[in-house]
Amino acid sequence: MQNIKGAGVCTPLGYLASSVAADIKGNKKGKKDLTLLYSEVPFTLAAVFTKNTIKAAPLKHAIKALETNREFSAIVVNSGNANASTGKQGLEAVDTIVKAFEDELGTGEGSVLMGSTGTIGVKMPVEKVTSSVKELVDELDDANSHDFAAAIMTTDTVPKEIGVLVETPNGAYVVAGTTKGAGMIAPHMATMLCYITTDALIGADNLQNVLNNAVGESFNSITIDNDMSTNDTVFLMANGMSGIIPDIDQFQEAVNHVALELAKMIVKDGEGATKFVTIKVKNAQSEADAKKCAFAIANSPLVKTMFYGEDPNWGRLIATVGASGVAAVEEKIDICFDDLAYVKDGIIIDEKLEEKAAKIMKNDEIEITIDLNMGTFGKTVYTCDFSKEYVSINADYRT
Amino acid sequence: MQNIKGAGVCTPLGYLASSVAADIKGNKKGKKDLTLLYSEVPFTLAAVFTKNTIKAAPLKHAIKALETNREFSAIVVNSGNANASTGKQGLEAVDTIVKAFEDELGTGEGSVLMGSTGTIGVKMPVEKVTSSVKELVDELDDANSHDFAAAIMTTDTVPKEIGVLVETPNGAYVVAGTTKGAGMIAPHMATMLCYITTDALIGADNLQNVLNNAVGESFNSITIDNDMSTNDTVFLMANGMSGIIPDIDQFQEAVNHVALELAKMIVKDGEGATKFVTIKVKNAQSEADAKKCAFAIANSPLVKTMFYGEDPNWGRLIATVGASGVAAVEEKIDICFDDLAYVKDGIIIDEKLEEKAAKIMKNDEIEITIDLNMGTFGKTVYTCDFSKEYVSINADYRT
Repeated sequence: MQNIKGAGVCTPLGYLASSVAADIKGNKKGKKDLTLLYSEVPFTLAAVFTKNTIKAAPLKHAIKALETNREFSAIVVNSGNANASTGKQGLEAVDTIVKAFEDELGTGEGSVLMGSTGTIGVKMPVEKVTSSVKELVDELDDANSHDFAAAIMTTDTVPKEIGVLVETPNGAYVVAGTTKGAGMIAPHMATMLCYITTDALIGADNLQNVLNNAVGESFNSITIDNDMSTNDTVFLMANGMSGIIPDIDQFQEAVNHVALELAKMIVKDGEGATKFVTIKVKNAQSEADAKKCAFAIANSPLVKTMFYGEDPNWGRLIATVGASGVAAVEEKIDICFDDLAYVKDGIIIDEKLEEKAAKIMKNDEIEITIDLNMGTFGKTVYTCDFSKEYVSINADYRT
Repeated sequence: MQNIKGAGVCTPLGYLASSVAADIKGNKKGKKDLTLLYSEVPFTLAAVFTKNTIKAAPLKHAIKALETNREFSAIVVNSGNANASTGKQGLEAVDTIVKAFEDELGTGEGSVLMGSTGTIGVKMPVEKVTSSVKELVDELDDANSHDFAAAIMTTDTVPKEIGVLVETPNGAYVVAGTTKGAGMIAPHMATMLCYITTDALIGADNLQNVLNNAVGESFNSITIDNDMSTNDTVFLMANGMSGIIPDIDQFQEAVNHVALELAKMIVKDGEGATKFVTIKVKNAQSEADAKKCAFAIANSPLVKTMFYGEDPNWGRLIATVGASGVAAVEEKIDICFDDLAYVKDGIIIDEKLEEKAAKIMKNDEIEITIDLNMGTFGKTVYTCDFSKEYVSINADYRT
């Protein structure tokens, strides 16, 4: 497996994309906000959706479609309107939009799905989308990966793309992907759209298993502000155009890599994030405890502001372990900042270490290891700090 | 029951206080940070402590003392050092300090308890405390309530005090209290110290029941940043000096009132808070759901920044209901901003209402009602917005 420089969703064989500025949000900023991803032959689809009980209209539509069909030809994504909490009008909007694309593409009923991200509770401006259908279909091209990645962005500051080439005895195939995230990234993903494409040839059930495994260790292991949106979606599309039937372990590894790298890019571009923080919980009493403890630390505003302030205040870490409610004994807890053993048996090893720890806190990437010494279970999660910019972005989001 | 203007912990009969600037934190700011509260006759004590599994040394000491004794004469509180995660030295520090006060007061072994708030994991400077013992004892006076309230503050911007007079057929008694809070206020309280005094005459078990009831609806119904400290403590002290044996319901009502008003003061003075927000969840399917949903909304950084930004973005509220995992059906949810019916059956009643809702969001105090229409259970919690100042305070706390 090797990284392909400059790869994106159109790097695997047969995928074409196009994007336009449709002014979906109505702020006339001229940003491309409507994009189409099409495969020359239908792709098999695996999907993971938000666990939020309130789901946006495009998700309701896709979930229903997946009950009877696993092959599709295109997806259309807008980044100006969540089309969530929009009632019957929202569902009708999706129907009208996908029908317009199905007609123009000639791919038949039920062949197009939709993704949306943006403000919740605002009526979807259907006409702005349908009036762009012809232009989007006409401009489909395999050189448009980067435009696709840019068009799905909201508060993201950089497009997020990756692709890998997987060599096999019978030839090579590609797994590539793009994502948008920034805020609201949390367990079970949040306001996060991710589209992974491959030209490997693989059945629907295997594809879904691979995606489920990959999401658990990537998008479900990152957190920015512990919120979970109505619109989160990860799609894994496989159109088989390479003709390669992949070894399942090798394919899993490639999808894991793509998903994890994309997830890390989301954290690095978290709203207002200035630091990338890895929280490793070791030797918890159970898998559930390891996860609960790691996320409690990664989500604590006090811990996150401590990273922003570059303050090696380990007391906030140990207090959060206690607050998380997992099985823990103060006198057993060890803490490392990167490779620096800082706390042993619940107390600081030497107060002079604070200077070294303070130096580590100045880095852009920091790894904190909490060893509970209670059992054998571990969990690693990725998060970012909590900055004044986070508050600015979210206080002023709609203005 | 009537409010007593200017009341504090020394308003009930027999309570005296004193405070000094002992430079516990070592930043030489000259703030009074060490304070003594003493009762002329021993008081019966009821107490509630943090549920954090990591507890500060003074709490371990008090919990142990309460196993065999319910009567004490004094409490000493410092606001410069949490004395948490300080190991054996921390416990020995408490022993040394309380013994010094017991000797100077002449109240005997086991008669003094301690409270602490400040940075975790820093050694307690015992000498700075013991060298102030004589001065503190000499200066005890019933005119020092306000000094006591000020001396327990950390990032609080104002002292928090209240007192009520309760009239009975046999005469009157007083319930008064003070608290410090500001950050880390969450379910089960957090870096929160609260001292409630009364001169009513009441047994230890009744006193503890009254306190448990009061805390559930006050300190455990507020949240600032969902963190829970190692030091949280609520004490209810009853020295019986009024001679009045209170009617238990009337006494409960008075303690509830004092606790709730103090809890609200904490939220209003939340770190960086600019708004006081009441979240009312109605008609949940269970008591647990009502609580979970109300706290999920009150703790969501996206919701809290929305209040800071004065943006009536009800979509974030409904998305958080969904993310909370409680039994909810999108099409049944109604939302009011103060008295304004804004969302009905999961969608906005009229987009023109946004202007009215925006006006409500400009107020200093806002009440949000979420009606789930799923059952009969409700919960009200109090919170504040999330501002740039919150991040500043917590990023720079130790500097």
